[in-house]
Amino acid sequence: MLLPQINDPEQLKSLSVDELTTLAEEIRRFLIEKLTATGGHLGSNLGVVELTLALHYCYNSPRDKMIYDVGHQAYVHKILTGRQDRFDTLRKHQGLCGFVKRSESEHDVWEAGHSSTSLSAAMGMAMARDLKGEDNKVIAVIGDGALTGGMAFEALNHIGHEKRKLMVILNDNEMSIAPNVGAMHNYLSKIRSDRHYLRAKDEVEGLLKKIPAIGGRLAKTAEQLKNSLKYMMVPGVLFEELGFTYLGPVDGHDLEKMIDTFHQADNVAGPVLVHVLTTKGKGYKPAETDFYKSHAISPYKIESGQALKAVGPPMYTEVFGETLIELGREDSRLIAVTPAMPGGSGLFPFAKEFPDRMIDVGIAEQHAATLCAALAMEGMKPVYAVYSTFMQRAYDQIVHDICRHNANVMFAIDRAGFVGADGETHQGVYDVAFMRHIPNMVMMMPKDENELRHMMKTALEYNDGPIAYRYPRINGTGVAMDPELRTIPIGSWERLRTGEGYAVVACGPMVQVAEEAADLLKREGIQVGVVNARFLKPLDNSMLLDLAHAGTNMVVIEEACQAGSLGSSVLEFYAENEIYDARVHLMGVPDIFVEHGSIKEQRQETGLTVEALCARIKSMMALSAYNYKTTSSS
Amino acid sequence: MLLPQINDPEQLKSLSVDELTTLAEEIRRFLIEKLTATGGHLGSNLGVVELTLALHYCYNSPRDKMIYDVGHQAYVHKILTGRQDRFDTLRKHQGLCGFVKRSESEHDVWEAGHSSTSLSAAMGMAMARDLKGEDNKVIAVIGDGALTGGMAFEALNHIGHEKRKLMVILNDNEMSIAPNVGAMHNYLSKIRSDRHYLRAKDEVEGLLKKIPAIGGRLAKTAEQLKNSLKYMMVPGVLFEELGFTYLGPVDGHDLEKMIDTFHQADNVAGPVLVHVLTTKGKGYKPAETDFYKSHAISPYKIESGQALKAVGPPMYTEVFGETLIELGREDSRLIAVTPAMPGGSGLFPFAKEFPDRMIDVGIAEQHAATLCAALAMEGMKPVYAVYSTFMQRAYDQIVHDICRHNANVMFAIDRAGFVGADGETHQGVYDVAFMRHIPNMVMMMPKDENELRHMMKTALEYNDGPIAYRYPRINGTGVAMDPELRTIPIGSWERLRTGEGYAVVACGPMVQVAEEAADLLKREGIQVGVVNARFLKPLDNSMLLDLAHAGTNMVVIEEACQAGSLGSSVLEFYAENEIYDARVHLMGVPDIFVEHGSIKEQRQETGLTVEALCARIKSMMALSAYNYKTTSSS
Repeated sequence: MLLPQINDPEQLKSLSVDELTTLAEEIRRFLIEKLTATGGHLGSNLGVVELTLALHYCYNSPRDKMIYDVGHQAYVHKILTGRQDRFDTLRKHQGLCGFVKRSESEHDVWEAGHSSTSLSAAMGMAMARDLKGEDNKVIAVIGDGALTGGMAFEALNHIGHEKRKLMVILNDNEMSIAPNVGAMHNYLSKIRSDRHYLRAKDEVEGLLKKIPAIGGRLAKTAEQLKNSLKYMMVPGVLFEELGFTYLGPVDGHDLEKMIDTFHQADNVAGPVLVHVLTTKGKGYKPAETDFYKSHAISPYKIESGQALKAVGPPMYTEVFGETLIELGREDSRLIAVTPAMPGGSGLFPFAKEFPDRMIDVGIAEQHAATLCAALAMEGMKPVYAVYSTFMQRAYDQIVHDICRHNANVMFAIDRAGFVGADGETHQGVYDVAFMRHIPNMVMMMPKDENELRHMMKTALEYNDGPIAYRYPRINGTGVAMDPELRTIPIGSWERLRTGEGYAVVACGPMVQVAEEAADLLKREGIQVGVVNARFLKPLDNSMLLDLAHAGTNMVVIEEACQAGSLGSSVLEFYAENEIYDARVHLMGVPDIFVEHGSIKEQRQETGLTVEALCARIKSMMALSAYNYKTTSSS
Repeated sequence: MLLPQINDPEQLKSLSVDELTTLAEEIRRFLIEKLTATGGHLGSNLGVVELTLALHYCYNSPRDKMIYDVGHQAYVHKILTGRQDRFDTLRKHQGLCGFVKRSESEHDVWEAGHSSTSLSAAMGMAMARDLKGEDNKVIAVIGDGALTGGMAFEALNHIGHEKRKLMVILNDNEMSIAPNVGAMHNYLSKIRSDRHYLRAKDEVEGLLKKIPAIGGRLAKTAEQLKNSLKYMMVPGVLFEELGFTYLGPVDGHDLEKMIDTFHQADNVAGPVLVHVLTTKGKGYKPAETDFYKSHAISPYKIESGQALKAVGPPMYTEVFGETLIELGREDSRLIAVTPAMPGGSGLFPFAKEFPDRMIDVGIAEQHAATLCAALAMEGMKPVYAVYSTFMQRAYDQIVHDICRHNANVMFAIDRAGFVGADGETHQGVYDVAFMRHIPNMVMMMPKDENELRHMMKTALEYNDGPIAYRYPRINGTGVAMDPELRTIPIGSWERLRTGEGYAVVACGPMVQVAEEAADLLKREGIQVGVVNARFLKPLDNSMLLDLAHAGTNMVVIEEACQAGSLGSSVLEFYAENEIYDARVHLMGVPDIFVEHGSIKEQRQETGLTVEALCARIKSMMALSAYNYKTTSSS
């Protein structure tokens, strides 16, 4: 075994290509075995084993900067840079991060969880290098899917113009997370299938020599004809036109060819794009053949690749997907729009029944949002199905194109709240704070999966502008499902139990936390009210007034950043109405980036648990008693 | 005169090309005359006179959808669709909007003030059309500058894949707002200069015939050679590769040629891109030759094009630009990054002195932000100079790439608060609400231009992560400038005057409003304190505690959306600290989109004036007196 001896990429340089090939196989086995227990991005990492080896063989990390786009395909990089022994902790609380992580290693120079950032990062590092007069290499590894994100194009456009020396490795595995859509994908496919053009080069040059020598006015044309041949011999004309030297396509599982190509790239002045063809899941049959499951997977059985899944109530995502079909049958204007997450968003069943009304735009959150605005303005009822964290990319389009137009766009915001193993790049804790201040926006969050269904109906029936429902990345509560869908009055909250002087105003999964806390406190004789704050905007003004007039002490608890979310808007409501009878306590996500772990651990870390809520209410009571005492004794 | 008779685009269809040409000249004169008084986007509108005429001549608005990217080049469209008589009110309060505006006319089908949205809009409208089984045309007019925005590429990628029938007019005037940067621009320039390729087509085909007939293994190669000629004859190969039929380039001031080309485009199945070459400022010498000034201009002298400018203290923007030079001399790591706004952001003097340290990335707010993160991580000190409203495009990059990395990026947020004539698409009122909840962020706003300078120094000296200073689109207060720059302690506010039971916590230009209100109230014997809340994050905790412990009634006043901004964070602070002694009143921008007008009018509309502040304080006093009475009598 070679692998156990490798703890620094420097060691690779003394290996032969044959030894590197052996090492590649060892790494594959390592990945397949380790990930059965931890889960993770198996397919993409199996695809880049040779690519990563070739990079570390040819370049000197960390002096040369290796930037992995959407850093989830950096497991091999982690293995080669001294982190083999920690792979059992992958994606676990305080364990190895599933993405590139600067705090883990000096070889991790750029973190990402969202796609399409690597080219901008590479440009910044190349620019800094030149300004400092240094001469290290800068290498960005980007997938074909990530290349469709708008910011990647913005960076290509800048890089191609500035002509600084840097290398872009286009890791073309013919799919991002779902099969790629988009013209860029079609273009890359054409290059793949036209590879014989490369071999035709010599033949064409011979052919040209047969053209009789000509002078006069045709001479220039003949010259142009020759120049035009580059288009035939260089398949990457699109990249060439954007100012890159294009090299490839090269087989991303052939170490020798890749090493040769990288050496060739080193001799190019200015930016070079190396087009590497890889197979996602390479070397592991279940992953090679089931592309969706091989993206981000749960722990699985090694022989079949089947997930070891806990039984339980359906995920909110599934309930969303199924309900959308019901609504789609009812209303032919309903259209689902997803930015490259048809599977993750639970949209496959809908797509199967309504192929014309399911639009996957690729990794293009901005375009998806504005597309929805235009669809709505033409009388359609688009649902923008998106993860909370990725919706961050569309903030401006939500303000400028959807809310300003007051377009009837529905937002299905999945993975709202903590996301568990994906960690800090993926936490869905900002959407309330970045959406509720936008005029015309309505926002909901259900206490359970049954309520989600009614919210979806409510959104469909609502015709006064944008409306959002957000739901967490967890199983539902197992509640019974109402057979009939109904609408919920806009801005209405639900009083689940009344208390004596104390109430918890909770949102989404925190409603259950509140109910459990109230149960526990009841055993101690403390009656605490629970309110399901199912509308994040608008608030239930009359319930808030009632609570205040009753002199209620409130805790607003939410799995969202405390700054600017629901608790904050409750405070604003009372301030705007000059009401000081209500005392409002806040429990939300503090002002930190919450790292990977289980959702349970993330709630513990941030104090969003039954225990913490009970403790908070008791401390409020103690404080009140003290205040009461001091007041009455004064 | 033809123009005064035109009040419906339908009337154009009966005109001859000669009459249209005459009309074009009349429209030019109309624009030049009207805009001397109102100001506006003169250059870009002069550039599209013939283009707009040709579109309305060939197509049937509003049935056919005409979508103008960054709707500021739609003046001609407005003139042709019955709004001539209102042009004196352009960009004025309750007057004609400077952008496309749906409420003004059924011919205005898509509003925009931010660039690069038109292709997504067109795709949505084409998709809705097809789903509804209709057959109208959908036409997007997009400038070459706007094409570099990432979301435009996302849309191109989707349109080229889906192959729906729609037309993209690429209005190529060789510059967006500043001269275009980027590889796409270089590519378009090449097409412009290679126009003779088109004429060479026949000659090349003749040449090909001279190649001796060949069989065997060379036959396929010869066929490929012929195919490759399309690259030579079709200058828009990049667009062709992305799935568009490319037509052009066509002279955008030649009505006949454009009309022919549009007819040709109509016969194309699937998406077509028509490349139209125009000259910004066409027909008005000062605008043709001074590109920056011809973008968005103030009222001007008609003979010279010189702005009629009021004399007064320097704009905040100018102070920023000048101070940046001082800091640039002091610290060679300082780099300015702008997304296509070098002039508007006051960066020309800096660019002149430090050409290597001034980076214009084109209309690419996302890339700019992530580029800054990478520059910072490599030891540079980047300043991201950006308008508040455009920074909305970079929200995700600010969260994911800058704040999560805790990178030392400085933000110079210009046009924070109301922006006046540009109106609702450009209001800079959201940045506090969408930035303050992001971990690691520090945010400041100066009370005057002198303080801005110290904040810039403070930001440069700060090395613990991202730090922002925001400033308004107005003249400074005329305050004396300190010769020496100094740093301001992070999180420290400034107590400008002490009061008796009442204090105004104000931010930015509202500090002056607060001071004036305090002066007025003083004459009535009311002592109101004024606090300069120069840090929006972190807050000055000890001053907030002092205010609360003194039982102060506070008004927090800010030119930012009330939801989620400074006032909201003050409320959170007290709630988090379980302090109920302070009564906090909020004055901010209410939950509406504020339309165009002067900044003064916008403040009046939203109650952010000296008068409104005085009234609020008096009503607080009345309420307190009432409360006091009821309390003491109980």
